[in-house]
Amino acid sequence: MPIDLRVYLVLDPALTSGRSPLEIAEAALQGGITALQLRWKSGPLREMLRLGEALRELCRRYGIPFLINDRVDVAIAVHADGVHLGQEDLPPEVARRLLGPQALIGVSARTPEQARAAEAAGADYLGTGSVFPTASKANPTLIGLEGLAAVVRSTRLPVVAIGGVNPENAAACIRAGAAGVAVISAITQAPDPEAAARALRQAVEGALAGGPSPNGGTNTRI
Amino acid sequence: MPIDLRVYLVLDPALTSGRSPLEIAEAALQGGITALQLRWKSGPLREMLRLGEALRELCRRYGIPFLINDRVDVAIAVHADGVHLGQEDLPPEVARRLLGPQALIGVSARTPEQARAAEAAGADYLGTGSVFPTASKANPTLIGLEGLAAVVRSTRLPVVAIGGVNPENAAACIRAGAAGVAVISAITQAPDPEAAARALRQAVEGALAGGPSPNGGTNTRI
Repeated sequence: MPIDLRVYLVLDPALTSGRSPLEIAEAALQGGITALQLRWKSGPLREMLRLGEALRELCRRYGIPFLINDRVDVAIAVHADGVHLGQEDLPPEVARRLLGPQALIGVSARTPEQARAAEAAGADYLGTGSVFPTASKANPTLIGLEGLAAVVRSTRLPVVAIGGVNPENAAACIRAGAAGVAVISAITQAPDPEAAARALRQAVEGALAGGPSPNGGTNTRI
Repeated sequence: MPIDLRVYLVLDPALTSGRSPLEIAEAALQGGITALQLRWKSGPLREMLRLGEALRELCRRYGIPFLINDRVDVAIAVHADGVHLGQEDLPPEVARRLLGPQALIGVSARTPEQARAAEAAGADYLGTGSVFPTASKANPTLIGLEGLAAVVRSTRLPVVAIGGVNPENAAACIRAGAAGVAVISAITQAPDPEAAARALRQAVEGALAGGPSPNGGTNTRI
């Protein structure tokens, strides 16, 4: 199933500077995000269910896919479009069995090896990073633009770049072969989340329209 | 679906005094536990999957049900017999939808109100406590034997007593109307888990054979 990864918001209710996750999501949708993931690291699951159901409705109104981080059962419960899985979460093939062939399944892959394994396991897209240092994650393993390009070259799956991406460096990710950029705090902690989403969208679109990348790849994955 | 709750081991790999969870489970099965739940609060999910698959095989060999705490997706992935859900986990009706009519669904219920709600939502049994103070949980809400008896009276579901239960006080739980006792550390941190399981089983069986309880209830739930 194809997924538009151009601007992919990962919404973590713990990282919204105390603002309503739902309001931030709506502002980001107005600003032009193309996919939304709910990441819920702690707190009562029933609150996650309530928020997940509200976000699913919101995403449906805007016509963009809604994904749940890690919890396949929650994704099924709130009728999300799919899940995003880390290397330590449920294996993609198990998630596929539970979610069915139509579901979107994304997998975090830091290396070409992880990328090939995820592709073989039936993933629909990859999340690759951390490309740049980020405040959302303590001591991330940085792969840089070279690491991102190496993952892109290793797989036929679309790759979304994550980790410290902002409107200034988003174009470089696209030129390295990414189909889009995923952000957490660049939108959720921005003073104006709608403007932040719009700036990211413009940066990505500009780079996607820019033709072949300096390192010989193309921006449109075939 | 009926479930034999007489001696219900909740296995938390973080509470085994450093010993192998699988070896403790096997010793407990030898000692006569009648149900086993895997509780996994932290750590890589793929380790939980591996342990869950091994425990499911073990339980199948002994002919007792194997349940997973909280994670319905993991229960499906490892082909467990069911799940145990807290008040903040997925609602029982959602779990039932995901797991199907044959699955065992247990719900933690501390009050008659929670017990009635769980019964209405399709639970198969209730876990009720904390009956006594316990080292496995910091500052639990104690309900005592009176609270346990109040839950038993409020529902037709079998109730397993949990929280600080040991061979000395297990009989009192049964006399209060419980169908069995659930323990964590009384088995997993015992010097001899098999002997601990056997002592609990004997205490429960002795009390179940003892006829009507002092407070007028019967031990056999109809």
